[in-house]
Amino acid sequence: MLGARGGWQALRRCSSLPRAVRLRVREALGAREPADEVKVQGWVRSVRAQKEVLFLHINDGSSLENLQVVADPSLENRDLTFGSAVEVEGKLVKSPHRMQNMELKAETIRVVGPCDTWLFPLKMKERHPLEYVRQFPHLRCRNNTLGSLLRIRSEATAAIHSFFQDNGYVHIHTPIITSNDCEGAGELFQIEASNEAKESAEKTYFFNVPAFLTVSGQLHLEVMAGAFTHVFTFGPTFRAENSQSRRHLAEFYMVEAELSFTENLQDVTQVIEDLVKTATSTVLSRCPRDVELFHKYVAPAQKTKDRLEQMLKNKFVTISYNEAVEILKQASQTFTFKPEWGCDLQTEHEKYLVKHCGEVPLFVINYPYDLKPFYMRDNEDGPQRTVAAVDLLVPGIGELCGGSLREERLPFLESRLQRLGLADTYQWYLDLRKFGSVPHGGFGMGFERYLQYILGVDNIKDVIPFPRFSHSCLL
Amino acid sequence: MLGARGGWQALRRCSSLPRAVRLRVREALGAREPADEVKVQGWVRSVRAQKEVLFLHINDGSSLENLQVVADPSLENRDLTFGSAVEVEGKLVKSPHRMQNMELKAETIRVVGPCDTWLFPLKMKERHPLEYVRQFPHLRCRNNTLGSLLRIRSEATAAIHSFFQDNGYVHIHTPIITSNDCEGAGELFQIEASNEAKESAEKTYFFNVPAFLTVSGQLHLEVMAGAFTHVFTFGPTFRAENSQSRRHLAEFYMVEAELSFTENLQDVTQVIEDLVKTATSTVLSRCPRDVELFHKYVAPAQKTKDRLEQMLKNKFVTISYNEAVEILKQASQTFTFKPEWGCDLQTEHEKYLVKHCGEVPLFVINYPYDLKPFYMRDNEDGPQRTVAAVDLLVPGIGELCGGSLREERLPFLESRLQRLGLADTYQWYLDLRKFGSVPHGGFGMGFERYLQYILGVDNIKDVIPFPRFSHSCLL
Repeated sequence: MLGARGGWQALRRCSSLPRAVRLRVREALGAREPADEVKVQGWVRSVRAQKEVLFLHINDGSSLENLQVVADPSLENRDLTFGSAVEVEGKLVKSPHRMQNMELKAETIRVVGPCDTWLFPLKMKERHPLEYVRQFPHLRCRNNTLGSLLRIRSEATAAIHSFFQDNGYVHIHTPIITSNDCEGAGELFQIEASNEAKESAEKTYFFNVPAFLTVSGQLHLEVMAGAFTHVFTFGPTFRAENSQSRRHLAEFYMVEAELSFTENLQDVTQVIEDLVKTATSTVLSRCPRDVELFHKYVAPAQKTKDRLEQMLKNKFVTISYNEAVEILKQASQTFTFKPEWGCDLQTEHEKYLVKHCGEVPLFVINYPYDLKPFYMRDNEDGPQRTVAAVDLLVPGIGELCGGSLREERLPFLESRLQRLGLADTYQWYLDLRKFGSVPHGGFGMGFERYLQYILGVDNIKDVIPFPRFSHSCLL
Repeated sequence: MLGARGGWQALRRCSSLPRAVRLRVREALGAREPADEVKVQGWVRSVRAQKEVLFLHINDGSSLENLQVVADPSLENRDLTFGSAVEVEGKLVKSPHRMQNMELKAETIRVVGPCDTWLFPLKMKERHPLEYVRQFPHLRCRNNTLGSLLRIRSEATAAIHSFFQDNGYVHIHTPIITSNDCEGAGELFQIEASNEAKESAEKTYFFNVPAFLTVSGQLHLEVMAGAFTHVFTFGPTFRAENSQSRRHLAEFYMVEAELSFTENLQDVTQVIEDLVKTATSTVLSRCPRDVELFHKYVAPAQKTKDRLEQMLKNKFVTISYNEAVEILKQASQTFTFKPEWGCDLQTEHEKYLVKHCGEVPLFVINYPYDLKPFYMRDNEDGPQRTVAAVDLLVPGIGELCGGSLREERLPFLESRLQRLGLADTYQWYLDLRKFGSVPHGGFGMGFERYLQYILGVDNIKDVIPFPRFSHSCLL
């Protein structure tokens, strides 16, 4: 994952004598040539003392694989345990084992930080279930699965940034604290200065108006798309939802993009498809071993891997909401919610549609006007019948992305906002339609959902760095 | 700025007839060869109708420079005004003007979105002051200066991500909502579900405990440095400070990094210096014209540009806090706050020190123990005398970065937290010192301060996308 980018100060001469070259575990494992005077630092993942030889496995988080250290038994000491931090100096040599390229023949082993193995909740060579490690938010990153997850998350983040930058999008930090709630969703977090920080007791609001945590950067991005044509953001968004669920977080990351001068909804779906494919193939090529761990041990029955390979090869399928309803009506399956034109698609419906289309990513487009927020573009296929909206449904997850063309025409937007009684609130948004307004559209993708999709992870709490929203362990 | 990365779908065939190739303005300006059937879309920055010829300048946000369009006067129409959105098709030809490479000979001009120039607060060819455009948070991005600022901000963001990834750092999304306040700073924002979202009236807190917006991701990053060795984050942080000031924002971005297996404070200062230099030289090479605009028209007297060139060439200077106090005591200048060992350095002191050292970036290290937070490492140069802390001071700004070695030794940390009555609160942080704790350190850099530094911008509200924290225009 890491080394491929080159760059690294791979050959750092250490200041202490002897002048050993400091290598990360990943660099040591990938070295082409043996080397003398090498120094590796990391945490012990296993200790095996035999009569003639002492074996250690060292991990420093740069890869899933450990570096094997081979030492004389005389180098053993009682602090050299699972979980302890060590600094090993010696010779990097070709390993006789088929499964690894290099190993380190230790000349010195220094325990930098001992580990209280009795208290340490992770145990040597045990494959702890995700539910178990979730109890230790400050220690679980030293577990193999979470280590792989966070390396993948880091690479996926980089891949998403690169995708947009390579395609001429300007990155915008949209506001986290805002007075607008984008879709009128009720589940907002309100913020206020804590008591100690209040400027005076008389003042009702710190910002003079009620302020909330953002649920979407879309409206702000639209402002920017009117100047830069292509813009994106990738930041935290918030919903005050019951977070006991496996599917929801109070704090989650969203990738959002807006593009001006669109001709039709396909301009938006094409970007979504390119983004999902590019990010996924980058992650697969940069973290093959980390992804493999999920597909082998976490995702059930290898399904996820096969699906990803299929996904990368084929064009995403597109059906209209009308077609979707017809498919559901003709289904032999009985649904809890009867499919009916004008009603929202339920999870059971989405699952059926994805299955019906062959367990592939599926765009559903052109939803009923009344189901969707005010900013979506009227298709004019009847009096306020459908809007140019799109949802991307994927196997195992359901909705991964949502987007639309935005209503760029002042009269349409104005009358809709007036009917909703929101014309005053969104005066600034109406303003944008007066000064060189152009057809435009955009979408949002939940980043955690994306990780769940490519890795086959069931509980959304297992794809975030700190599972703090379990209500019990807010770090 | 954009094209250099390659990639771009530069040659998009348009679906409409004639099949013209759609080019961004930046691509058109940088084209090597003339081309027929080109389509450019953007907003009109100037219209000049002469008897024989009509000149337009088109901008689409991909660069500071406009594309000149040359057309027959018959193509003029009354909607073709400053601020309107247009689509121009024609031939891309070599420009006869020395200052531009290419221009577009229009065959058709279509006004996609007219502009109400009477209401539009930006005026043709006017250099609006930053204070003026700050009043229009939803429109100011169509001003040259803010356009350049946001392209630079986007490139700086990308450069910072690349710097860390190229050096083997894992990117971590540290929590925004947290129950810890890192340094015990009082100026916190508290969050709570808004009334509509409250689950029940009896429940006091949504998360069962009071929850705040993060002031720093440091402690969470330390957790991760104990597994990945090198980690970074780059996200929003919050202070409920009076935001009428030119120097403070309620919401601002911080770059933070932590590294394990440090040998001394220089391991930290070296990363800071490399980061500042790499990001700056990347921005200078990717956005030369955008940066030039600031150095010519916004920053006073060309000073900023010279300083940056000096900065990139020379090694940053390091002095100790002890030396700093001696320098201040010997200064001929009289200070409002008398310099005294054990007191914080005031802005006037920092400015003097930077000037004294030749207007270069200046590391001040080893601050008094009692001035600094509990997690900084005791230097043991006397009973609790100094800690291994560092501040980076830069010309025109003052403090740009702050960092330290962290106290990795359980007994030192435990007794300090007990004295402060915080041992229970930070039990999880103490825990980390029991399981393979290693010497480590880290730092934070205010991203907006960094932009102010490299661009010479006086008011911090002018380096954010939305100047929402002026208390009056929270979008």
